[in-house]
Amino acid sequence: MKKDVLSNVHSDKLFEQVYDYLLERIRRGEWKVHEKLPSIRVLAAEFEVHRLTVFKAYQLLKQNRKVYVKDKSGYYVQPGSTLPLAAQQDPIVAAYVHESCLSEIHQVEAVYQFSKALLDPNLLPNRYFSEYVKKVFDIYPKVLGTYSTTQGDLELREALCRYFADKHHFDLTKDEILITSGSQEAIDLIARVLVKPRDTVLLERPTYSPAIDVFRRQGANIVPIDIYPDGYRLDQVEELMQKYKPRLFYLNPTFQNPTGYTVPAEQRKRIVDLAAQYQCLLVEDDPCPDIYFGEEPPPPFFAYDTTGCAIYIRSFSKYIAPGLSIAMVACRPSFMTYLVKAKSLSDSGTPLLNQKIFLHYFFSERMQQHLEKLRTALAIRKEIMEEELSATGWQWNSPAGGFNLWIKLPESTPMEGLLGKSMEQSITFVPGSICDPRRELNSWIRMSYSYLNELQLREGLRRFVSVFRQLSSGRKSDHL
Amino acid sequence: MKKDVLSNVHSDKLFEQVYDYLLERIRRGEWKVHEKLPSIRVLAAEFEVHRLTVFKAYQLLKQNRKVYVKDKSGYYVQPGSTLPLAAQQDPIVAAYVHESCLSEIHQVEAVYQFSKALLDPNLLPNRYFSEYVKKVFDIYPKVLGTYSTTQGDLELREALCRYFADKHHFDLTKDEILITSGSQEAIDLIARVLVKPRDTVLLERPTYSPAIDVFRRQGANIVPIDIYPDGYRLDQVEELMQKYKPRLFYLNPTFQNPTGYTVPAEQRKRIVDLAAQYQCLLVEDDPCPDIYFGEEPPPPFFAYDTTGCAIYIRSFSKYIAPGLSIAMVACRPSFMTYLVKAKSLSDSGTPLLNQKIFLHYFFSERMQQHLEKLRTALAIRKEIMEEELSATGWQWNSPAGGFNLWIKLPESTPMEGLLGKSMEQSITFVPGSICDPRRELNSWIRMSYSYLNELQLREGLRRFVSVFRQLSSGRKSDHL
Repeated sequence: MKKDVLSNVHSDKLFEQVYDYLLERIRRGEWKVHEKLPSIRVLAAEFEVHRLTVFKAYQLLKQNRKVYVKDKSGYYVQPGSTLPLAAQQDPIVAAYVHESCLSEIHQVEAVYQFSKALLDPNLLPNRYFSEYVKKVFDIYPKVLGTYSTTQGDLELREALCRYFADKHHFDLTKDEILITSGSQEAIDLIARVLVKPRDTVLLERPTYSPAIDVFRRQGANIVPIDIYPDGYRLDQVEELMQKYKPRLFYLNPTFQNPTGYTVPAEQRKRIVDLAAQYQCLLVEDDPCPDIYFGEEPPPPFFAYDTTGCAIYIRSFSKYIAPGLSIAMVACRPSFMTYLVKAKSLSDSGTPLLNQKIFLHYFFSERMQQHLEKLRTALAIRKEIMEEELSATGWQWNSPAGGFNLWIKLPESTPMEGLLGKSMEQSITFVPGSICDPRRELNSWIRMSYSYLNELQLREGLRRFVSVFRQLSSGRKSDHL
Repeated sequence: MKKDVLSNVHSDKLFEQVYDYLLERIRRGEWKVHEKLPSIRVLAAEFEVHRLTVFKAYQLLKQNRKVYVKDKSGYYVQPGSTLPLAAQQDPIVAAYVHESCLSEIHQVEAVYQFSKALLDPNLLPNRYFSEYVKKVFDIYPKVLGTYSTTQGDLELREALCRYFADKHHFDLTKDEILITSGSQEAIDLIARVLVKPRDTVLLERPTYSPAIDVFRRQGANIVPIDIYPDGYRLDQVEELMQKYKPRLFYLNPTFQNPTGYTVPAEQRKRIVDLAAQYQCLLVEDDPCPDIYFGEEPPPPFFAYDTTGCAIYIRSFSKYIAPGLSIAMVACRPSFMTYLVKAKSLSDSGTPLLNQKIFLHYFFSERMQQHLEKLRTALAIRKEIMEEELSATGWQWNSPAGGFNLWIKLPESTPMEGLLGKSMEQSITFVPGSICDPRRELNSWIRMSYSYLNELQLREGLRRFVSVFRQLSSGRKSDHL
């Protein structure tokens, strides 16, 4: 156990190594909440370090509200510092526990999968896909026999340069684009290359759940920034950048996952300036900019960046072709060099076939026309969901695009019970706590309207609402 | 610098952390060869540790021949402990420096790429590919609109179970197979999940170069095992397993890359027993078992394993469809759980399209017939290479399969010069040192006969031999 735990320790000062180790042992429940921790003397001996080093570690734990001091008698485990029991059992899995919550939910064979922020395959022009694929084989008869370069197919990177130059006036060369196998790989590569253990990483709260796990696994010190329907609180952003000198800010400012909120243009400008001022990289994840129901969203942060602090992850999986898993990273050569090297060790380049199919499919007139239909279809599904939920009294901000409704249930809602009962009814949703770096937001849920058709949406939501009512009436009657 | 270096430090004892840190600083050339290192007192103060801790670190450095002691006056940097200068410049790239040698060689736009252990695309039945792809779209019209599960397409995993049951009597269930995007991803996932920093990893010497980089990046203590035309020295294997209690042994026992050597069946049995005895995992990388020129090679280690210590990586990229990047890992559920979780964070599953195309293509009668032709074609190319080199007096063992000739040049050969002059003649090859965990084997080279056609092989080899002759005659004349 000890070895497992310590091998996850990375640090750049001894007292921080002791801090990380203690924190890890606390997280894994080696001591229970409110239990007294070993004395400074004992630990100094155990670690072969000066007592001052242990003292400093305890001070940091106290400061970060992981432990508390009781009438000078010593340090005690603060409530909320430990992992759920399931996670404590397993040293290796611990880092993935929250991610595994999410993927476990996805693995449930439910009829009404509101947990899936994916596109209903029936909304894609599947017949036309085949045409394009055949076309690809006519143009590149040897495509299946050929490896791609690690950085990605040159023809595709050049086409993307033109596309972003036309659309957002990106100033971008083919050498500043990396093709990845989906955005998850992009986030993982960026974290592995740019984030050193104990670097501070700013994450939106709530945010895309697997990103929390990737940065946490990297040993980052995660600091949340609240996101609101009208964006961030700029004073909070500046304060945190000033205080923590963060390595990067991972953000999803357009139809954000899970909230659907969009950061307005003037804030984007301002944040790019702040990032440049405090030398904080902006890692923008942009999976669905084309899925807007009203106006087009503002240009990506990358378009406002003049100092090279913006890194742009654009995924084309979600609504173009999930089966192709194509995404790209745009960043300056200084970072690109390392990303390409890292990719060369984690796979030998995204399959050429997928890149060529995507190239011909995405830039076809047909695809661009199809996006129009897609927006309409998803807008309708969103409205159906809002209509079905209108009588519940639950709160949400009607999103201007994207795939999800971020819904606030009554504070009293027993989330575990609701999820359990819903699954019994073949219904899944994403509990908000999974999307929260602090693992709070317990009365929020994410429900996606992108995966189910109109009928499934209506039926599934009716069942869900009645599950909720039974549960809360049951609880009320308990109180009688 | 200091931060960068230290953030790469992983360890489970303080003195080992100090050891790693010092070693890293030495590798990066912070002190030159034969330069005196700081005193124990100074370092103890710098690290806030007991002097005994620094003393232990220095002892370990001495034991591992990184430093030496001169007449009690202190510790000095041992020759060979520092990285090449180019690598020292760059903190992030350092870990990848050797890998980058290889990929740099591959990036050279050469006509005669003997460095590429890839299949000549013209040897693949490209027209038939298109047929299968169209078939796939008829059977799965929505394949491009659908995500794969993280573990991989169920239909494919079941087909692979049947295939390996028939071929090697594998006792395997669909839950014990993970589909990856090429074998590089498989190695990376296994390293990330199973190798803790400072775990000992056994690697063949020479071995597949990127594997060295992956395990090194993981912080492993790499111990080489020599491979010979008739396999390993079993006494060396047992001695090292006994001495280091290694976490795993990464091996490529069939038409090994780079040597082409094959480990005989009776050794495989014996090594599986040793692995079980010393609880060392066997990670077998098997990229080209079908490319044999004489007899079929013996079954994989996995077939002999009864205790669950064998993990089998089977790549289908090299000679089936490089453009699909499909590989698989077979292992017991206890490891599979973690591999699947790790994959869910590094990508969201291998693209479904690629899996479905592979499924229908690989198991087609046509493909199995094609393998016969492929073996003949490659055997002929190998013979051409050997014929062209027969007059040189260089030494190699004629491989019974695979893609490469592992050639010993005269000891005196100036490798850097040879590589440089060859590139001027549009010729590339792989210097042996890249494949050696110790970065020695300086008079060996790997030349692949798989990528160039007959004419290119002959012409390229003639040019290469004359480059070599000029170089050596030039050197001789220097000595006159």
